[in-house]
Amino acid sequence: MNPSNDLVTRSVNALRFLAADMVEQARSGHPGLPMGAAAMAYALWMRHLRHNPANPSWPNRDRFILSGGHGSALLYALLHLTGYDLPLEELKRFRQWGSRTPGHPEYGLTPGVEVTTGPLGQGFATGVGMAIGQAHMAARFNRPQYPIFDHWIYALVTDGDLMEGISHEAASLAGHLRLGRLVYLYDDNGVTIDGPTDLAFSEDVAQRFEAYGWHVIRDVDGMDVDAVDAAIAQAKADPRPSLIMCRTIIGYGAPHKQGTSAAHGAPLGPDELRAAKEALGWPTEPMFFVPDDVREHFLTSRTRGQQAEAEWRRLWEAYRNAYPDLAAELERRWAGRLPDDWDADLPTFPAEPKGLATRAASGQALNALARRVPELIGGSADLTPSNKTYLQGQGDFGPQNYAGRNLHFGVREHAMAAAANGLALYGGLRPFAATFLVFSDYLRPALRLSALMEVPVTYVFTHDSLAVGEDGPTHQPVEHLAALRAIPHLVVLRPADANETVEAWRVALEYTDGPVALALTRQAVPTLDRARFAAAAGLRRGAYVLADLGPTPPQVILMASGSEVALIVAAGERLAAEGVGVRLVSFPSWELFAAQGPAYREQVLPRAIRARVAVEAGVPQGWERWVGPWGRILGVHRFGASAPGAVVMEKYGFTVDRVMELAREALTAAAG
Amino acid sequence: MNPSNDLVTRSVNALRFLAADMVEQARSGHPGLPMGAAAMAYALWMRHLRHNPANPSWPNRDRFILSGGHGSALLYALLHLTGYDLPLEELKRFRQWGSRTPGHPEYGLTPGVEVTTGPLGQGFATGVGMAIGQAHMAARFNRPQYPIFDHWIYALVTDGDLMEGISHEAASLAGHLRLGRLVYLYDDNGVTIDGPTDLAFSEDVAQRFEAYGWHVIRDVDGMDVDAVDAAIAQAKADPRPSLIMCRTIIGYGAPHKQGTSAAHGAPLGPDELRAAKEALGWPTEPMFFVPDDVREHFLTSRTRGQQAEAEWRRLWEAYRNAYPDLAAELERRWAGRLPDDWDADLPTFPAEPKGLATRAASGQALNALARRVPELIGGSADLTPSNKTYLQGQGDFGPQNYAGRNLHFGVREHAMAAAANGLALYGGLRPFAATFLVFSDYLRPALRLSALMEVPVTYVFTHDSLAVGEDGPTHQPVEHLAALRAIPHLVVLRPADANETVEAWRVALEYTDGPVALALTRQAVPTLDRARFAAAAGLRRGAYVLADLGPTPPQVILMASGSEVALIVAAGERLAAEGVGVRLVSFPSWELFAAQGPAYREQVLPRAIRARVAVEAGVPQGWERWVGPWGRILGVHRFGASAPGAVVMEKYGFTVDRVMELAREALTAAAG
Repeated sequence: MNPSNDLVTRSVNALRFLAADMVEQARSGHPGLPMGAAAMAYALWMRHLRHNPANPSWPNRDRFILSGGHGSALLYALLHLTGYDLPLEELKRFRQWGSRTPGHPEYGLTPGVEVTTGPLGQGFATGVGMAIGQAHMAARFNRPQYPIFDHWIYALVTDGDLMEGISHEAASLAGHLRLGRLVYLYDDNGVTIDGPTDLAFSEDVAQRFEAYGWHVIRDVDGMDVDAVDAAIAQAKADPRPSLIMCRTIIGYGAPHKQGTSAAHGAPLGPDELRAAKEALGWPTEPMFFVPDDVREHFLTSRTRGQQAEAEWRRLWEAYRNAYPDLAAELERRWAGRLPDDWDADLPTFPAEPKGLATRAASGQALNALARRVPELIGGSADLTPSNKTYLQGQGDFGPQNYAGRNLHFGVREHAMAAAANGLALYGGLRPFAATFLVFSDYLRPALRLSALMEVPVTYVFTHDSLAVGEDGPTHQPVEHLAALRAIPHLVVLRPADANETVEAWRVALEYTDGPVALALTRQAVPTLDRARFAAAAGLRRGAYVLADLGPTPPQVILMASGSEVALIVAAGERLAAEGVGVRLVSFPSWELFAAQGPAYREQVLPRAIRARVAVEAGVPQGWERWVGPWGRILGVHRFGASAPGAVVMEKYGFTVDRVMELAREALTAAAG
Repeated sequence: MNPSNDLVTRSVNALRFLAADMVEQARSGHPGLPMGAAAMAYALWMRHLRHNPANPSWPNRDRFILSGGHGSALLYALLHLTGYDLPLEELKRFRQWGSRTPGHPEYGLTPGVEVTTGPLGQGFATGVGMAIGQAHMAARFNRPQYPIFDHWIYALVTDGDLMEGISHEAASLAGHLRLGRLVYLYDDNGVTIDGPTDLAFSEDVAQRFEAYGWHVIRDVDGMDVDAVDAAIAQAKADPRPSLIMCRTIIGYGAPHKQGTSAAHGAPLGPDELRAAKEALGWPTEPMFFVPDDVREHFLTSRTRGQQAEAEWRRLWEAYRNAYPDLAAELERRWAGRLPDDWDADLPTFPAEPKGLATRAASGQALNALARRVPELIGGSADLTPSNKTYLQGQGDFGPQNYAGRNLHFGVREHAMAAAANGLALYGGLRPFAATFLVFSDYLRPALRLSALMEVPVTYVFTHDSLAVGEDGPTHQPVEHLAALRAIPHLVVLRPADANETVEAWRVALEYTDGPVALALTRQAVPTLDRARFAAAAGLRRGAYVLADLGPTPPQVILMASGSEVALIVAAGERLAAEGVGVRLVSFPSWELFAAQGPAYREQVLPRAIRARVAVEAGVPQGWERWVGPWGRILGVHRFGASAPGAVVMEKYGFTVDRVMELAREALTAAAG
């Protein structure tokens, strides 16, 4: 049963004007994209998208990503009309406090929103991660006759998305990996904020994507539902990722603004909106008008979706009988439960003055976890041997082997992080992503979205200080710990030795409310003697007392994170030998410590001990909070330098003598 | 006079083994790129590059960028042999403390190094900025018969550079702008750190660059000097930017490691190095061996360079006679002097309770400067109308008009910032780059290099807080002020009102030792009455007393930056009316305040006033330094929310009542 052309046109117009009315009512927003892309969206949502509005978490649903998140009103109109739990009242509260219709789509807030978008390029690259997830889960779990994972990842992308560098990284990766389940619709409306797109953008997009190994469908009339429909069908039939290039008219219908940047980012205004409605034969009153037959037509999505999921559930039941172990594993993974004994193989490292690099301990911990936690998947942006993130025996993910769990992202940090977001959003997977700490800058916008969406991605950042040495200031992070700690919802962990590193991985696996960033050393650090010092499990509380040395109660607190803990231990021992009472605090995570109750915090850092020294090979910013006004901070105040790591550390003052000197200064200041 | 083939081969080998010996001696570094790319480098440096080793700052020199900065040993070998002030002793101190041969090339440290590279993709994109600079200066200053600016920008780029997203942004922009003076040599050695490049990278690079509008020369044998030479000649003859694809063998010569990732990033080891020398017929002893005829051959660069510059100087003298005004302007600009009366048109804004957005005041200040400071050039990443950075009457830079001073970067923040670095490095230009503050994350790696190189780029970051409003958390910065302040050598300025904004621009123009970031409001803020409050020039000192209200000496200090200054003023007035002595401090820049002497700092924030409140719509991180242990910080502890800006600010506690409450808390705490 095909709906009449008239019904289709009016359905498309309903999307247009619901969106335009939302923007108008909010006096804020972006009408241009929804009005231009409504026909594309209709073709995709009503003729291809397999989803169940009654169950937005159905694992085998198609994913839809609005990469140009500023067109959120279009997405909300689609979600509302196809029967998601998003009543018209919410559309009327577009962009208002407490509504489920924020300015840009937010994952976790609105049912049916698969990913937070708005920062351009992110949706594009996150979809690539979802497609990796689909390919991997299919390779691991599908069985002949049982295509449990058998769906598509669609996105609507804009010229802004395609100009961003992350789109290049992600598209190149997707082409390389031959992720054929990706079908991206390019809303080519020829307009940007500054003016016509060709003011700054004249590349041959089709040729570029063909160079990446994509299947490109050119010159599709994006205003024509049937043309878009046919192109999507063609895209699905091709084994490569597909880009469908749809010519559209931004703000279509608005007589004075369509086709110009004036339609992009501001309400049309009452006159222009009325004129647009008149031009397209739409009732000018009431606002938020949806004809009954249009409403009914869109709601067939609900029936179709329920049928689709029911059919899949039958398949799933049969699969469960045929492959009970696989099904049980999947159910566990979907529920977000770790396997029993997931941490049974985690190593414990004996005390060892020479010790080992925390990146090396991390590699061992990660491999011990990977053997028992099959949902652990990830890789590095071409620094695998340096980051120590290779999962032995778990295979390389690639077009010949989607079951592999080692991802080779290439030198593409930004796409890596966005893809990790996509993997985390996909379900049933626990992704990690690795690079040098200094290059966390390259992926920061995607990491911010991990935090904003509160998805559990583990970032493995090695080479975490000046001690990187010879590679010099371009490769030595100094501001990055501070910059990462500034991000809400991100837990930064900088373990002091091998055993704290193991604990850090334990925290990372257990923590599912957001991303975790591990900062790990390149160089060897002593493995502390836990018979003399408190257990490494203290890391879980963010900061803990390693030991009180010399006379009690302690007179001075020495605190440090990561590789500098060895330094305060050595300084503390010498001070104690001189008769000073010293408390040694290992301080791997501000966030975890701040989350403890005041009683615990007072126990570790008693108000009464005013003399305090913090030591960290990074900018001091923020340590004031923990050392207080009489404290001293041994940090880094400028960029690094190229020389052997131990030389750089010494030249920058990271010596036992300097720590002792600062301890004495703090004691004097606190006494004064 | 062509050197014999034998001399050429031995010259290439001299480059290879100087570099390999440097790495060997340092026990650290990357021999693979130098050994593979030495022939390419020879062809470029000895047959095309017009430079004067005796004067690395000759304005019309060709620029050479080693975008794969890890190959620094090759660059140092070239600089040494062609006669730059880089003696062999420095090569022997490769990667050692205090040497001029750091692990990655550092601008400002080593003569002849045009840009700091190492973070991949940066050199590629910075070169695009230099090419914009060349095109612009040529359009402005060249006259018939007087090609004052007539040179090329060469780069050696690697697969890592081409995988990074920034290369896409920059290449797309360069193709659009038809920057024909760019000639990039791609060292296509087929190897990355993780293994063969095709593990993660199988795009058709040539096709991709053709899609950008580049001229691509395929399949050049990068090991063959004559082939590379011919390709460069062909590239120069084409009006488009050129990419020369050179097939090379990483680590060429090393019998067991060449062609593999083992040659990339570690010394060959004595045995392999000896075997390599034997394989290529090179004396195994002594290290750092350079045959006399090879040394003499390379040193012809010096003569050629002196002749080239002398020729140009004759042209310049004639130009100076023919166009004395233009020549005088150029000399002023090269000397880094601002024009007389450069700030004469800067506006002063009358007190106005409703006021205006600091981004709007910025737009006025910028335009007032642009009229008098012709070296001011810049633009936005497709947010020109929002950032208020359009220079009226100054034309749009584009392939039809290289004289234009408005750059349309497209939605390419990262390439924008790197291009701004290139413009600053080029000489005679003062670039600015604009986007929303939240998207400073997208350009952070390039901004870090602005700071590391200490080049004067002005970043215009508007929409600087939760008050952005409806666009929601993806567009509301909360952690970005802290994250920027963490970067050494960067001055962050968040002016409180229109007049502070004018002062901020004054600082930005006067400051030439590094980048400046302006954080500006979207929303209107009151223009303070400078008859009641201290002059806005106080901004120059980072923080200053606006006024003491009520009883003196003040009991409590309220400090704030940017839009929150209006809030402390209102709170201060009410507290004073209640009989509390209040000091109001406008605090636009931590860096400038920290740079003041202790006496000034004590004057503004006297130790004796312990009750302090800081107010800023961002994460509190680091404000502890200024408020001390009895202080209170009104900041933001989570991501933002979508609603009208004033609503969000109120919901997050940015109210006069809350400031007063915190002031009372601080008074109690300080008294206790």
